[in-house]
This record gives sequence, structure tokens and C-alpha cells, in this order.
Amino acid sequence: MKTNRDLRLTVTLRLLDGEGQRRFGPGVAALLEEVREKRSLRAAAGSMGMAYSKAWRIVRDAEEALGRKLLDSTIGGRNGGGAVLTPEAEALLEAYRALRGEVGAYAQQRFQERFRDL
Amino acid sequence: MKTNRDLRLTVTLRLLDGEGQRRFGPGVAALLEEVREKRSLRAAAGSMGMAYSKAWRIVRDAEEALGRKLLDSTIGGRNGGGAVLTPEAEALLEAYRALRGEVGAYAQQRFQERFRDL
Repeated sequence: MKTNRDLRLTVTLRLLDGEGQRRFGPGVAALLEEVREKRSLRAAAGSMGMAYSKAWRIVRDAEEALGRKLLDSTIGGRNGGGAVLTPEAEALLEAYRALRGEVGAYAQQRFQERFRDL
Repeated sequence: MKTNRDLRLTVTLRLLDGEGQRRFGPGVAALLEEVREKRSLRAAAGSMGMAYSKAWRIVRDAEEALGRKLLDSTIGGRNGGGAVLTPEAEALLEAYRALRGEVGAYAQQRFQERFRDL
């Protein structure tokens, strides 16, 4: 099948709440990774072309759904305060990345098998 | 972790082309299943609240990316013509559904394992 040569499979993992609302997925994960890098939610939002208010809302919604704090505010410093990931956020990111890695690898293998003879 | 009780994992599988454009995924699959049900692309689009022009474009883009016809036009009948899935579309849908099923089952099992102790 042409698929095997020219198309590639992507796998997206998301956590939904009871109402089907997205609470954690690639977007939140990327935002948290950017906060870790920049040590600031505002800087992270800016580098992703996202409004600070939206970034703040995404983090707040995820915190509420997960029942835990994801960011700790830091005070002072050259940029007048910022944010770092909580240990719980680090553990969550690590679990999500590991899950994505193993599910992705399994999916690619099954994809080759299932689509090879189409 | 609260996740295990209140949040659920969803897995989305998509085929992307060389430019990263989405060519096949949950949307096209649902549209094709609806065409099979209604035997008409126009009726399928309508029942999904989608403009006919958009449905037509989705099918055309997928056909182009996959290098095969997905719909056969039918002529006449009570509704003045319609569409049925080609055998290739049926095989593709079947492979996609099977892949989604097995990757989903694996992901749920790994999710329980990875997130249980968070």
C-alpha cells in the first residue's frame, strides 16, 4: 500500500475527564516542558505563541483535573519571579512521555503489520 | 493518583503525509462509516453536521494520499444516486479499526501500570 511508503502513523494520547473535556495531552505536556526550560509560564507561553491567559488557564484546568499543583511560583530573580515544575508535574510528564514512547513503538509495529498488504 | 479514578485515556491514530498534513484518522473513518450506512456522501455529511463540500474534500484528499478510490458513485434509485465504499475503503477501515482496537487495549494496560503510583 502507498501508505507504508509515503504516510506515517502518529499516536496522540490524551486524558479526558468525565465530561469528555481534554485535561492532559500533547499541548499541556509541551507547555510544561517549556516552563521547565524557561522557568517562567509567561516566557513559555510567549515562546509557543500562546497568550499568557490561555497558558495559565490550561495549567489551572490540568491542576484541577489532576488534583495536584503542577507549577510552583518563584519569587524575585532577574526576571522578577517565575515558575518551576512541582515534583508531581515532573513525575506526570515522565509517566506521559514513557507511555507515549511505548505505545508509539507498539503502534508503529502493528501498523506495519496491518497495513502492509493493503 | 486521581487520574486513575476520574480521568480516562484516549488514543488517536492518524496518518500524516510527508508535509505533516493529516490524511486519514478518526474524522475520515467516521465519515466513511456514515457513507456506508447512508449510501450517500451528501446524506452522511448532513447527518454529521458537515458541509457537503467539506466532506467531498476530505474524501478526495484521503484518496489522493492513499492512491486509491474510496467511494464509488451509484446512479439512480429513490434519492437520485449516492455512494458506496470501494473494497479498498472497506479494507482500509477494517485495518484502521483493528489497529485502533489493539493499540487502544495496549495503551490502557500500560496507562494503568504507569499512572497507578503517581
